[in-house]
Amino acid sequence: MINIGVDLGGTTIKMALIDDDGKMIDKWAIATNTIDNGKHIAADISASVLKKMKQFNLERSTVRGVGVGAPGFINMDTGFIYQAVNIGWKDYALKDELEKSIGLPVVIDNDANMAALGEMWLGAGLGAKNLICVTLGTGVGGGIICDGEILHGVSGMAGEIGHITVLPSDGAPCNCGKTGCLETVSSATGIRRLALDALDYNDSESILRDIFESKGDITAEDVFNCAAQNDPLSSTVAEKAAFYLGFALGALAVTINPEKIVIGGGVSHAGETLLTPLTKYFKRFSLPRVFDACSIDIAKLGNDAGVIGGAWLSKTKLQQAHTTA
Amino acid sequence: MINIGVDLGGTTIKMALIDDDGKMIDKWAIATNTIDNGKHIAADISASVLKKMKQFNLERSTVRGVGVGAPGFINMDTGFIYQAVNIGWKDYALKDELEKSIGLPVVIDNDANMAALGEMWLGAGLGAKNLICVTLGTGVGGGIICDGEILHGVSGMAGEIGHITVLPSDGAPCNCGKTGCLETVSSATGIRRLALDALDYNDSESILRDIFESKGDITAEDVFNCAAQNDPLSSTVAEKAAFYLGFALGALAVTINPEKIVIGGGVSHAGETLLTPLTKYFKRFSLPRVFDACSIDIAKLGNDAGVIGGAWLSKTKLQQAHTTA
Repeated sequence: MINIGVDLGGTTIKMALIDDDGKMIDKWAIATNTIDNGKHIAADISASVLKKMKQFNLERSTVRGVGVGAPGFINMDTGFIYQAVNIGWKDYALKDELEKSIGLPVVIDNDANMAALGEMWLGAGLGAKNLICVTLGTGVGGGIICDGEILHGVSGMAGEIGHITVLPSDGAPCNCGKTGCLETVSSATGIRRLALDALDYNDSESILRDIFESKGDITAEDVFNCAAQNDPLSSTVAEKAAFYLGFALGALAVTINPEKIVIGGGVSHAGETLLTPLTKYFKRFSLPRVFDACSIDIAKLGNDAGVIGGAWLSKTKLQQAHTTA
Repeated sequence: MINIGVDLGGTTIKMALIDDDGKMIDKWAIATNTIDNGKHIAADISASVLKKMKQFNLERSTVRGVGVGAPGFINMDTGFIYQAVNIGWKDYALKDELEKSIGLPVVIDNDANMAALGEMWLGAGLGAKNLICVTLGTGVGGGIICDGEILHGVSGMAGEIGHITVLPSDGAPCNCGKTGCLETVSSATGIRRLALDALDYNDSESILRDIFESKGDITAEDVFNCAAQNDPLSSTVAEKAAFYLGFALGALAVTINPEKIVIGGGVSHAGETLLTPLTKYFKRFSLPRVFDACSIDIAKLGNDAGVIGGAWLSKTKLQQAHTTA
């Protein structure tokens, strides 16, 4: 059977046809049409999917359904979006709208959870049934899988790893309204802020300072590149970001006892420059039996993780629906 | 059907007959016989259970099975105990031994998880499918239930809430070998230590100091009793214990998004003197949508939580086995 994975973002909608064995038949993307509070998006997705099915001569009977990762606050059982600010949706019945226009069963989950499902199925989490995925991008996102199932919690808020407090006092303000969240120190934005603070606080020579002076700004990528070249100031910042990430992941690991922790997002491109200090602090803040059972790996699927997770949701959650239909 | 709940401790083994509706028919206890590395325990439990079944004229066909909460490191799937130091077991096939001698199906889980299951079924967690139980006793134990199932993790270590680091630097040593664990500040032992430090550091008048001077020692209970009488030194200590507990529970809650947090163990007898500052800090360290969805309550079942959890395990996990037998 074929599954359709959809990764719905504020600017593009990524889609893919993926069979039950995880083989990607095709992937493509369309722009997200946010006019009229996003009311055309369901029709846009349907038209694009149906056209693609025609192109590949796929009968409806060979397609199991559509798994969608969507942003915002979602009721995962009903596929109802309470609010998705970037899209413009408010109290929008996405699942119902999509099923009506596409004529296939639809299952919806949070976009942050999709990458975790994708990595579990075909990526760095391959085969692990207890898995924590952390996405270090502009913010810090998370998806937690226990016994093969995504944790949603009572109101769909589970896995908000970025808002674990790591600085109980004197932390920087976070977008969520709290202070000292993991996101304020270990996201790309947080690492840039730590580095700007360090440059300001300190006037030692540094290749990071040279970059700052020539470009007028720096990125988390610059910090890790310079740290990889043993720039002391950059290494201190990278170490700090890794310290807080290791602190939060240690707390998560004694709670969840995962087999794998998968680190994705732009910051994960730092590879060993991040993993080496992270592993040191993760060991310090977890228990020996927890540490020994867990490996930390960099995500493998990049931008495809979301559509692959969507296809996995279709494959696993719509199987029964299809069988009994 | 009748379920037998067994709560196996280092000094006593508590047992109960509980029907599928949660009605407790009888409860009793026997001493834990740890001689010969605990090899007589399975036979002791069997003899006691079979005698009780006879006393109540219970046919084997009316008893579903036995749910056991055991200490130590356990393989929950096989009921094999890798090690239980307090009992003397090492590589002991508890489930197999019990099934052989008792002639009924047996299911085994960690004792720390049993209280959580008990409170979920009949106690303060009634009806909640997403639940965190924290036991504040000599140590800090935890049981985490997501979507109605206890989290075990990849090696049975999930829910080790007491070993979440809350003081990343300068924390006191913990029994686990780390420093700054929640257990070092929010267990009865930890609260006593904080209070002794405060008495030492500070020479202000305090009714806690009067108790210390008359008894030669203090307990966590003394600290909360004095805090309830507005003793400033005791209030500061209670506030500190609540701060760290709120900090750890905030991190857990943004991860799990529970409907209820149930606080048990000796320290929970402090009631509102603990809950008031705890709720304040829990709010500070969780997210609004997470805080709003969650209530914090004191455990209701006391020492019965374990046997009730055992009966629940029998009721839910042995149902299928019995049906297909």
